[in-house]
Amino acid sequence: MTPGRDRPPTVLSELREKARTRLDPVHWDFFEGGAGTETALAENERAFRRLALLPRVLRGAGPADTAVTLLGDRAELPVVVSPTAFHRLAHPDGELATARATAAAGTVLITSMAATTAVAEVTAAARSVRADAAVWFQLYLQPAPGVTEELVRRAEQAGCGALVVTADSPVFGRRARDDHNGFHDLPAGLTAANMRDLPGAPPGGTRDIAMSPALSWDDLRRLRAGTRLPIVLKGVLHPDDARRAADEGVAALLVSNHGGRQLDAAPATVDALPAVVAAVGDRLPVLLDGGVRTGSDVVIALALGAAAVGIGRPALWGLAAEGEDGVAQVLAELRADVAQVMTLCGARDRGDLSRGQVVVRGQGTAPC
Amino acid sequence: MTPGRDRPPTVLSELREKARTRLDPVHWDFFEGGAGTETALAENERAFRRLALLPRVLRGAGPADTAVTLLGDRAELPVVVSPTAFHRLAHPDGELATARATAAAGTVLITSMAATTAVAEVTAAARSVRADAAVWFQLYLQPAPGVTEELVRRAEQAGCGALVVTADSPVFGRRARDDHNGFHDLPAGLTAANMRDLPGAPPGGTRDIAMSPALSWDDLRRLRAGTRLPIVLKGVLHPDDARRAADEGVAALLVSNHGGRQLDAAPATVDALPAVVAAVGDRLPVLLDGGVRTGSDVVIALALGAAAVGIGRPALWGLAAEGEDGVAQVLAELRADVAQVMTLCGARDRGDLSRGQVVVRGQGTAPC
Amino acid sequence: MTPGRDRPPTVLSELREKARTRLDPVHWDFFEGGAGTETALAENERAFRRLALLPRVLRGAGPADTAVTLLGDRAELPVVVSPTAFHRLAHPDGELATARATAAAGTVLITSMAATTAVAEVTAAARSVRADAAVWFQLYLQPAPGVTEELVRRAEQAGCGALVVTADSPVFGRRARDDHNGFHDLPAGLTAANMRDLPGAPPGGTRDIAMSPALSWDDLRRLRAGTRLPIVLKGVLHPDDARRAADEGVAALLVSNHGGRQLDAAPATVDALPAVVAAVGDRLPVLLDGGVRTGSDVVIALALGAAAVGIGRPALWGLAAEGEDGVAQVLAELRADVAQVMTLCGARDRGDLSRGQVVVRGQGTAPC
Amino acid sequence: MTPGRDRPPTVLSELREKARTRLDPVHWDFFEGGAGTETALAENERAFRRLALLPRVLRGAGPADTAVTLLGDRAELPVVVSPTAFHRLAHPDGELATARATAAAGTVLITSMAATTAVAEVTAAARSVRADAAVWFQLYLQPAPGVTEELVRRAEQAGCGALVVTADSPVFGRRARDDHNGFHDLPAGLTAANMRDLPGAPPGGTRDIAMSPALSWDDLRRLRAGTRLPIVLKGVLHPDDARRAADEGVAALLVSNHGGRQLDAAPATVDALPAVVAAVGDRLPVLLDGGVRTGSDVVIALALGAAAVGIGRPALWGLAAEGEDGVAQVLAELRADVAQVMTLCGARDRGDLSRGQVVVRGQGTAPC
Repeated sequence: MTPGRDRPPTVLSELREKARTRLDPVHWDFFEGGAGTETALAENERAFRRLALLPRVLRGAGPADTAVTLLGDRAELPVVVSPTAFHRLAHPDGELATARATAAAGTVLITSMAATTAVAEVTAAARSVRADAAVWFQLYLQPAPGVTEELVRRAEQAGCGALVVTADSPVFGRRARDDHNGFHDLPAGLTAANMRDLPGAPPGGTRDIAMSPALSWDDLRRLRAGTRLPIVLKGVLHPDDARRAADEGVAALLVSNHGGRQLDAAPATVDALPAVVAAVGDRLPVLLDGGVRTGSDVVIALALGAAAVGIGRPALWGLAAEGEDGVAQVLAELRADVAQVMTLCGARDRGDLSRGQVVVRGQGTAPC
Repeated sequence: MTPGRDRPPTVLSELREKARTRLDPVHWDFFEGGAGTETALAENERAFRRLALLPRVLRGAGPADTAVTLLGDRAELPVVVSPTAFHRLAHPDGELATARATAAAGTVLITSMAATTAVAEVTAAARSVRADAAVWFQLYLQPAPGVTEELVRRAEQAGCGALVVTADSPVFGRRARDDHNGFHDLPAGLTAANMRDLPGAPPGGTRDIAMSPALSWDDLRRLRAGTRLPIVLKGVLHPDDARRAADEGVAALLVSNHGGRQLDAAPATVDALPAVVAAVGDRLPVLLDGGVRTGSDVVIALALGAAAVGIGRPALWGLAAEGEDGVAQVLAELRADVAQVMTLCGARDRGDLSRGQVVVRGQGTAPC
Repeated sequence: MTPGRDRPPTVLSELREKARTRLDPVHWDFFEGGAGTETALAENERAFRRLALLPRVLRGAGPADTAVTLLGDRAELPVVVSPTAFHRLAHPDGELATARATAAAGTVLITSMAATTAVAEVTAAARSVRADAAVWFQLYLQPAPGVTEELVRRAEQAGCGALVVTADSPVFGRRARDDHNGFHDLPAGLTAANMRDLPGAPPGGTRDIAMSPALSWDDLRRLRAGTRLPIVLKGVLHPDDARRAADEGVAALLVSNHGGRQLDAAPATVDALPAVVAAVGDRLPVLLDGGVRTGSDVVIALALGAAAVGIGRPALWGLAAEGEDGVAQVLAELRADVAQVMTLCGARDRGDLSRGQVVVRGQGTAPC
Repeated sequence: MTPGRDRPPTVLSELREKARTRLDPVHWDFFEGGAGTETALAENERAFRRLALLPRVLRGAGPADTAVTLLGDRAELPVVVSPTAFHRLAHPDGELATARATAAAGTVLITSMAATTAVAEVTAAARSVRADAAVWFQLYLQPAPGVTEELVRRAEQAGCGALVVTADSPVFGRRARDDHNGFHDLPAGLTAANMRDLPGAPPGGTRDIAMSPALSWDDLRRLRAGTRLPIVLKGVLHPDDARRAADEGVAALLVSNHGGRQLDAAPATVDALPAVVAAVGDRLPVLLDGGVRTGSDVVIALALGAAAVGIGRPALWGLAAEGEDGVAQVLAELRADVAQVMTLCGARDRGDLSRGQVVVRGQGTAPC
């Protein structure tokens, strides 16, 4: 950036550029790319730019309190780390670095079933930093007998606080970058650690993660019957599915289009949020991920009724660029920015934000 | 594409670029260009980008079944090959290659009256691959006496399954590229084979295809009276015309703006589809062509009520790039992508898709 | 244009580029530029691109009849030549060339009060080509006593068919290009010929054209009382002004923003047209100018209720590029294109077009 | 600008470019930049481009009278100079130049609490040019005891006509350019002169300006009780806050997003104006600043109900480029342009403008 000429980089954009430089371009593409034409990917960010926040003034709110409570876990900021695969591909410290930084920031890490570090090690790393650190386990329901049960048992034993069941993946996404780069397997030395020693796995080897279009609400019901952990359903965009999920007793929803990596035609998540909140917002907490890059994005989602938001790629940018410290920088920056935006909106906490503060740019009316 | 820097090519975009390289630029312009300012051409694609699909989750749909039944013919995918002229200009194998690849893919070829291969040879090529291959014949109603009748007779004898009457061409389109390039006649050695030996044609020569603004519903009624073949009316965009067509007993409609090659001011076909479906969707099947490039485009059209869609230029890209195999690649890619998108939408088949799953990006509401 | 790579030029765009090359850049800027930020100028064209035409099919319309009747004058095409100043600045033959080409095309020329050729010479040139050629006289009401009266007398004596009173110019437009280029006076040898020998003019010299914010409906009423010619009010955009004009007995309206040369914040004329037609379309003919470049633009305006449209800059492009023949090419091209678009819309004549055929792109609904 | 090729510069754009050249790039960034992604900054200008003005014709309005009365002060144009910090950073003459030019133009200067010249010197400079020059004092309510009171006393003694209380700044904006450039302190020799010798300041030194999220309507009420000056509340965008402000007895509102320097997610001010006017327009005058660059922008705001508008950066461009004369040029240009646009709209004065004259481009309807 040349002073006087261009807009300068931000904390996140600088980490992103550093990550791009450090990573093998093929791995960068894996993390950064999306499905198909990458329309959903681009729209996730663009949709936030179409919305504006009406500030309130002179409310005497005092310093912003960014903390929220999520399924009984306190998060110091309304931003959790959404599940993403293969953190050791981004940085040698992998999920351990992410877990320590997230725990130190005082928020929830949703560790991926496709992590390169086993869930027990992830929770241990988080708890080494903060005794009550919250880690949730992301789960693809597995059609093979006994596999899901074993994964749930491990998550429970590791002390996870919730199961985040991904519902948007009845099949793997078609990612043109990975196809083009021929990227389909982890490099030697990295494994999907949670998939080791499962029923049906080769001795000492890992099972592949299966995605199945046969999965149904029945499978979710069976899962729920077999665990004491609350279930967060991830990938819900249609209000009718949100209602069904509430009826089925899930504890929370995560409005997500899988970061634009599954259905390329999916709407931006913040475009889908209002209808989901209208459908079930009074029954259970609704989270959102996809395209969140600034404090404004977070506060817009909160004002539209989200209990919290998740970040995916930004955490990976921090991790790839500077390891644990990079993830810490991302979360610190977002926390500061959320506090700033809340204060500028006249809000002390999430409860002071309301849907009437969100307007569509150029229309002056609330999104629908 | 450089890994880490750009979005990679897709199967279709690579075939398109290869076709552009292989073809005489003047012939490329003939296939690729449109009428006037090429606004309709560009809008056909752009309009799909304005729409999004709301996926449904956990429906236990199982693997997607992309097959549809069209006028009694089974198509393995809801994508037919729409009529385009002069396939031998794209590749020496011409319509024979297109017919074999389309038959092998198990879907319908609508062969053009302006083909460089006679309809009987086209159907024979298709049936050499699959005994029950479906070929429909595209027809411009001819004002000269006896010509239409003879064409219909040939289509019937060739075993065509339907007549696709083009209604959007009371006059030739004004194509600036062709005018600029001086492209008005087929090169030596190529002929509009269906127009040979017709009443009024010079001995051994071909009649020109006539387009007439005098044609009316009366002409269509006469055609219908003289054939046992079902009639698909192509080029309908106005709901009042759709109603009239249904009243006249046509078997199906094809919502089309002739690939942006006739009325440059025409709306994108997917913008026009909902009103046509609302008008007659319960009375007869409605197909659509124009701008279909991905599985998402196909599924959006199906969810809005289309029975199937047609592709024009993509088949020509495949043909020009790699002959029969190129067409096969295009159809295989679209079938795979349709299956992928249906599965991601929670749909086993077309019947599981509904209009409520289509939303306008940035609005969260259904298109009208 | 390279075949296979770019969209080719059109008749109008080629004439425009040729004009740009031939003209002194300062004079090009005078003709081509607009007021202020040139937003109104750009929007006039852009607004047409936002609209689409729904074609009708199989109506048996036959060849299109592009002729219309305007205040009793027959025009072979629904395109008149709107008034523009200083044609001799564009070409040595000036208004004489424009008049001959327009008469030959069989349509109306609205000659400007700021012409470089006197109205009597203009009408004579037109009538030398076609005995009943229609020429209307554009008039700025002059506050000085007797001036307007003398101008009206000359227009009547010259055989003009109507007075086109420009209402959008209570003051000269602020044109950044002309200010920057220091262009404020006609070069030596050119004069505003209609302003010669008027009351108060220096002997043998010309009066300046006055624009006055004091002009009111009273002045228009006085004008009307003193002439037998019908009055067309030009520059009306607000429906309340349209109603008032109808009440005042004007014969027709010309919806215009002066080609974007006066109020830079004015809406595109085709955006303003529907409300004006809704207000007075049943009482008097409504014409439109501004941004008309293609037959589609013309037919969109007609379908929205315009009786005809005017072109300004396109006629000047033709004139500057190739004199009389260039103007003839522009009118021939537009006539052919209008006929083409009407036929593609299923219309034999203007009466077959209806507002229901116009939709907003991406909305599927009529403009309001 | 090359004649015949590009749009030429305007008075304001030329001054802006000259300012950019003259200023230290770091200082340019301070004046020109905004918060966060600079979305609010860009939208302020863009939103005006989305709106159009419907002119009225033949109203006999006569020459435009651009004068307005604001809290009893006459302004020769409906454009005041909004408060901006550190004018001596832009030009050695600083606020004295701004004050003289603004007084000479006959309008109101809102001098900033963060000025580099004390308010008494600013008012003296203004009055040296025009005895009744109006200067208002912009105030951030200070939480420390006695500070606000002393500032108010000084403003009163200096003869300010109003207190403009900034309500949009419970915290400093996060400006990426300044952070990147490391610009956080005034260069040696410049001070925030109004902050000198205040309670709690170091001897001979200045207090920092405090921003506090604890400030509330109670603080405003105390302020009002302690001064005879009318209070203008600046930074209101939400209609509920506008209503509350009216209930609290403020004399006027200034709809502002602080030039895009505080809440990056804020809507464009002209998008927020209609709802504020609808809420309180009949109870107190509503002003607007943000993105005003042309006479059209001013008149659009007036037609939507603003009593006047403020300019921030344009005055700084003039000041940095050419000192007092530059500011004078900016105000003269805007006055001339406002008069031009009002006349073209058929308005003699602000009272002749109405909301019905404002339409959204491409929609033909009024903004909401």
